[in-house]
Amino acid sequence: MAEVAQPLDGAPAARVLVAGASGFTGALAAQIVWRHPKLELVAVTSRSDAGTRLDALYPRYRVPLELTELELDRVEGIDAAIVAYPHGAAAPTVAALRAAGVLVVDLSADFRLRDLATYERWYGEHGAPDLFGEGVYGLTELYREELRTAKLVATPGCYPTASVLALAPLAERGLLTDVVIDAKQGVSGAGRGGGDAMHYVSMDENAFAYKTEGHRHRPEIEQELTALGSPVPVTFVPHLLPLDQGELTSCYAQTSEPISKEEAQALYRARYEGEPFIRVVDGPPGLRDVRDSNVCHVYVTVEERGRVLAFSAIDNLWKGASGQGVQNLNLMLGLNETEGLQ
Amino acid sequence: MAEVAQPLDGAPAARVLVAGASGFTGALAAQIVWRHPKLELVAVTSRSDAGTRLDALYPRYRVPLELTELELDRVEGIDAAIVAYPHGAAAPTVAALRAAGVLVVDLSADFRLRDLATYERWYGEHGAPDLFGEGVYGLTELYREELRTAKLVATPGCYPTASVLALAPLAERGLLTDVVIDAKQGVSGAGRGGGDAMHYVSMDENAFAYKTEGHRHRPEIEQELTALGSPVPVTFVPHLLPLDQGELTSCYAQTSEPISKEEAQALYRARYEGEPFIRVVDGPPGLRDVRDSNVCHVYVTVEERGRVLAFSAIDNLWKGASGQGVQNLNLMLGLNETEGLQ
Amino acid sequence: MAEVAQPLDGAPAARVLVAGASGFTGALAAQIVWRHPKLELVAVTSRSDAGTRLDALYPRYRVPLELTELELDRVEGIDAAIVAYPHGAAAPTVAALRAAGVLVVDLSADFRLRDLATYERWYGEHGAPDLFGEGVYGLTELYREELRTAKLVATPGCYPTASVLALAPLAERGLLTDVVIDAKQGVSGAGRGGGDAMHYVSMDENAFAYKTEGHRHRPEIEQELTALGSPVPVTFVPHLLPLDQGELTSCYAQTSEPISKEEAQALYRARYEGEPFIRVVDGPPGLRDVRDSNVCHVYVTVEERGRVLAFSAIDNLWKGASGQGVQNLNLMLGLNETEGLQ
Amino acid sequence: MAEVAQPLDGAPAARVLVAGASGFTGALAAQIVWRHPKLELVAVTSRSDAGTRLDALYPRYRVPLELTELELDRVEGIDAAIVAYPHGAAAPTVAALRAAGVLVVDLSADFRLRDLATYERWYGEHGAPDLFGEGVYGLTELYREELRTAKLVATPGCYPTASVLALAPLAERGLLTDVVIDAKQGVSGAGRGGGDAMHYVSMDENAFAYKTEGHRHRPEIEQELTALGSPVPVTFVPHLLPLDQGELTSCYAQTSEPISKEEAQALYRARYEGEPFIRVVDGPPGLRDVRDSNVCHVYVTVEERGRVLAFSAIDNLWKGASGQGVQNLNLMLGLNETEGLQ
Repeated sequence: MAEVAQPLDGAPAARVLVAGASGFTGALAAQIVWRHPKLELVAVTSRSDAGTRLDALYPRYRVPLELTELELDRVEGIDAAIVAYPHGAAAPTVAALRAAGVLVVDLSADFRLRDLATYERWYGEHGAPDLFGEGVYGLTELYREELRTAKLVATPGCYPTASVLALAPLAERGLLTDVVIDAKQGVSGAGRGGGDAMHYVSMDENAFAYKTEGHRHRPEIEQELTALGSPVPVTFVPHLLPLDQGELTSCYAQTSEPISKEEAQALYRARYEGEPFIRVVDGPPGLRDVRDSNVCHVYVTVEERGRVLAFSAIDNLWKGASGQGVQNLNLMLGLNETEGLQ
Repeated sequence: MAEVAQPLDGAPAARVLVAGASGFTGALAAQIVWRHPKLELVAVTSRSDAGTRLDALYPRYRVPLELTELELDRVEGIDAAIVAYPHGAAAPTVAALRAAGVLVVDLSADFRLRDLATYERWYGEHGAPDLFGEGVYGLTELYREELRTAKLVATPGCYPTASVLALAPLAERGLLTDVVIDAKQGVSGAGRGGGDAMHYVSMDENAFAYKTEGHRHRPEIEQELTALGSPVPVTFVPHLLPLDQGELTSCYAQTSEPISKEEAQALYRARYEGEPFIRVVDGPPGLRDVRDSNVCHVYVTVEERGRVLAFSAIDNLWKGASGQGVQNLNLMLGLNETEGLQ
Repeated sequence: MAEVAQPLDGAPAARVLVAGASGFTGALAAQIVWRHPKLELVAVTSRSDAGTRLDALYPRYRVPLELTELELDRVEGIDAAIVAYPHGAAAPTVAALRAAGVLVVDLSADFRLRDLATYERWYGEHGAPDLFGEGVYGLTELYREELRTAKLVATPGCYPTASVLALAPLAERGLLTDVVIDAKQGVSGAGRGGGDAMHYVSMDENAFAYKTEGHRHRPEIEQELTALGSPVPVTFVPHLLPLDQGELTSCYAQTSEPISKEEAQALYRARYEGEPFIRVVDGPPGLRDVRDSNVCHVYVTVEERGRVLAFSAIDNLWKGASGQGVQNLNLMLGLNETEGLQ
Repeated sequence: MAEVAQPLDGAPAARVLVAGASGFTGALAAQIVWRHPKLELVAVTSRSDAGTRLDALYPRYRVPLELTELELDRVEGIDAAIVAYPHGAAAPTVAALRAAGVLVVDLSADFRLRDLATYERWYGEHGAPDLFGEGVYGLTELYREELRTAKLVATPGCYPTASVLALAPLAERGLLTDVVIDAKQGVSGAGRGGGDAMHYVSMDENAFAYKTEGHRHRPEIEQELTALGSPVPVTFVPHLLPLDQGELTSCYAQTSEPISKEEAQALYRARYEGEPFIRVVDGPPGLRDVRDSNVCHVYVTVEERGRVLAFSAIDNLWKGASGQGVQNLNLMLGLNETEGLQ
């Protein structure tokens, strides 16, 4: 097969590094940048797989670059970096890249929380406390204006992205008084590795909840609902499903005043009108409809007992990680937000 | 392959008919009766597939009997029937079988509800109103004594079975004040047929909620929680998952007084001690662990915000239909409850 | 979500109709044309689903056009059509479109065979015998030059495409003396419909051969191997696998003279060098690596007993149908062959 | 849940140890013995998981015993052992158990081959060369009489079992002159572990061939076909499919003299008449029909080009390993061959 060059459309708007490109989200970020008409992918790095070509590790992404070790003292010429490191490991690298003047889209949780004590409770010591609180929260539809001038973006993962998008129109009105989120995710959400538990034979024909006593994404979801106007306690329970990519949230909300199905649906349509990646759909969304896309499908209704039900479906690797990361990078660079994502 | 005879252990305790044996639950009921050491399977009937052998339709069940049309005026010699008809269609046949003196285990919803108006709202006109209210509700662990002398058993389906088993210990104490049930089911729960929506390509890598504005199993679940001692409104939302057999319920409950995780777990262990098919497990149950069995795994805990979380996992065709049906039939016949089910 | 317009890059090279857009291959063809930077999708037609929007039927393809009934007397202004009708049904429509001067890419088998008697044996009477034999066989890598001036292209389906691409380098040398093709396909290959046999519950955890006594794609494969230089009898057996999209062929070939693994691999690399959609890979190809792409992965080796093994993997809906159809249309229109396909 | 005791039917016919019970085949062997009405499961051993209860590792098997380390000097009172160790590791343990007078069913390849040089080429040095050649080959349907008096049984794995059962009726007539076997297996066939390659995300929607240049089961299959009367070279290529349990072989055979479809089918029906676990079916067998059973479905036909096609479907963990192991143990102990397997 003829080597495919990047489909660059003139001089690139930015030369981009993807750090941690051997994991699921880093590899997809590399692919999206590689195919992006305005970005040049200059390097893909990985500690564990340095020396391997990315298209040997992920043939379907077709990125013909060799993974190298990240050398933080040699990042001249790099305009922007997408960092796809595990929570906790990202902070020092992010700090070094920022110190070198590189724009950073971080996919970890290291700069998402606004309260250091909360961070430390769930993730341990922070690796770059001076920078803590400096990131712009990268849920694009909520922080679009701040993202245009951001230097460091803390892109939320799939659980907060899907949950907050499902609830934002109600939260912004200050309506939420009680929220249960039953979240369901495909196996890619658990990342590479995982041992016996993620073996095909373990997950095939299986489904279960996990971290039922408390999940570190709950405080992040509460933080964002509060910021939107609804300081509300959240019960959050994640589940794993026997599929590859996808994140479905079923949100059960109680409101401070009654709202009808028609009112709720009108509110959602108005709120998300014109959003390039949010589609308010006419019935409960399915994961298959958003697979391999940056799109979020949202549905709201009110059930017989008066509870508001809000559902959202995204691809956990796209809108829940790497796709949203590039969506944010587009904004940071003054590009069209949808560039390279359709 | 040598034809396998039924493994009868002496004279049968009953000669059994399975009506509607060409559907998923009827076919499994036929298999369980066929392999049962104390029951003789004398006929399997089906309107749509009469003339076909059951092992041609369901090779894996290995029941070498031909499906025939049910002739209600020729049921002499039949002691018991398992009726696996659609909701609404079952009642007249059940009535005719009862009139002929046949013990009936009905797998439809026709005799589960205790309020006729509620039945009519969700299912339409009832086909045997004289018999309405005469059935014993076949959730074995809750109605065991009544089942021993029952002539007509209305076996609950997978949603009520899994939901009520997950919540019963709390309901019996009158503790429940608010309940959200997020139920997740494999595709076999939708039955044969289903057209495009149940095509492999539609369900593969998919998951979604359905009937979000109101599901007919909600009033049945409320009826049973009320009967146990907790008259509580229930929000019930079913989902379909890309797997064959399995039903997982995640129940989010608020209680009239606080309960600790330890108290809740002790309550559940005490309540289900000695139950042959209920296992109180140490963490969130997975569907794979109960597949092709009559076992229900239950887990209870309390999350950080104080909500009680109760999970249950069953095989929707076994404990959620045909397995429980035979469990009930065993009791009706004075047999060991677990006979033929392990 | 804001309505996305087609990403047209200046005036379109052609205004395109997709006929039969409610089936799996037609719907994908519509999506590819819709996203194509040089083609304008002017209509999508369907007898069975006229009146429905295509993005209601296939949300993930996001084509916001309403399906209409094809009116063959009103095709002025249409430059080209992709016809995705069942075998046998396509011919009359193809003939009418050609009579109106429309370029046609046919995805059915109606114009693939060169011998009318063979066609009639496998498919019945031909619906446009005057046109029989007029189509150019649309296996792009073999008929590229003829395709540039073709008016009617008979695009092969997934089985012949994958089989012939796996064997072509050997066939062209006249080396093949005996061929067994064990072909394995995902469920989308069986098309919409299919009833009980294609229900999720039937195919989940299943795999089997079918049409073992003779499959109508065998004569087509023999025709093409003969045309390449190896008149060889072919044993062809298709299988269905529990996955959505994908076609894997395992070809077991005997050759008129011995060939070493190294010679075979060099032959394949030389033959497919520079091909934009064929990648000669270093080990047995996997379906996941080609999913949702127009790429074909090919691997050849020689096993211990001297048999040549050739494997190919494609996405049956892309390179095995709609993707290859657009690849051909690009050539017919003088566009870059890869336009809209990467 | 009440602890379930073994369903022993009187005094056990044998006290049985399962060594290597933490792997897929060992765990299933333990379950089958545990449920067996005539066998007592006295110990389950594992180096890697000693101290863990087997029902914690494999909840669905419900064997409430703790895994211990095997102590070969303390096996008094044990009548028989099923050894489920990796190839190469089994031989010394088998030898020690035999020296202690324990009947052994070995599930590894260590005693299946009859030629030591062949063994060493594929598996390396043999761990108990004195015992090499002493085992009876445990393909029950072919060696039933020898198995009745065997002390050491080398039970074949899924590939040889399925392949030889598919071809035996032809092999016994000396008809085979050329054989291609395209074998397809579920992921459990690769065993526990496997790292990234067996991760759910790697195998989902995937399928591929492996070990295409030569597989160690080929000489074993050739050995058995030769023993049956057809010394024939075999081309054997295994594939992995995205499913849990199942082994499908598609065999493409040429015969020394023509045979019609009717003759072939009559030959197979006659050969397997009365076999409790072989069913000669009327069309290509599917994996779903044999899942979780010890049954083998076989189908033979002749395609248009004159090649004989023989298909077999088994559950790779049952008839392809542990089920057949117990089938053999039943014979060794003078029990009914089907005891505990239905």
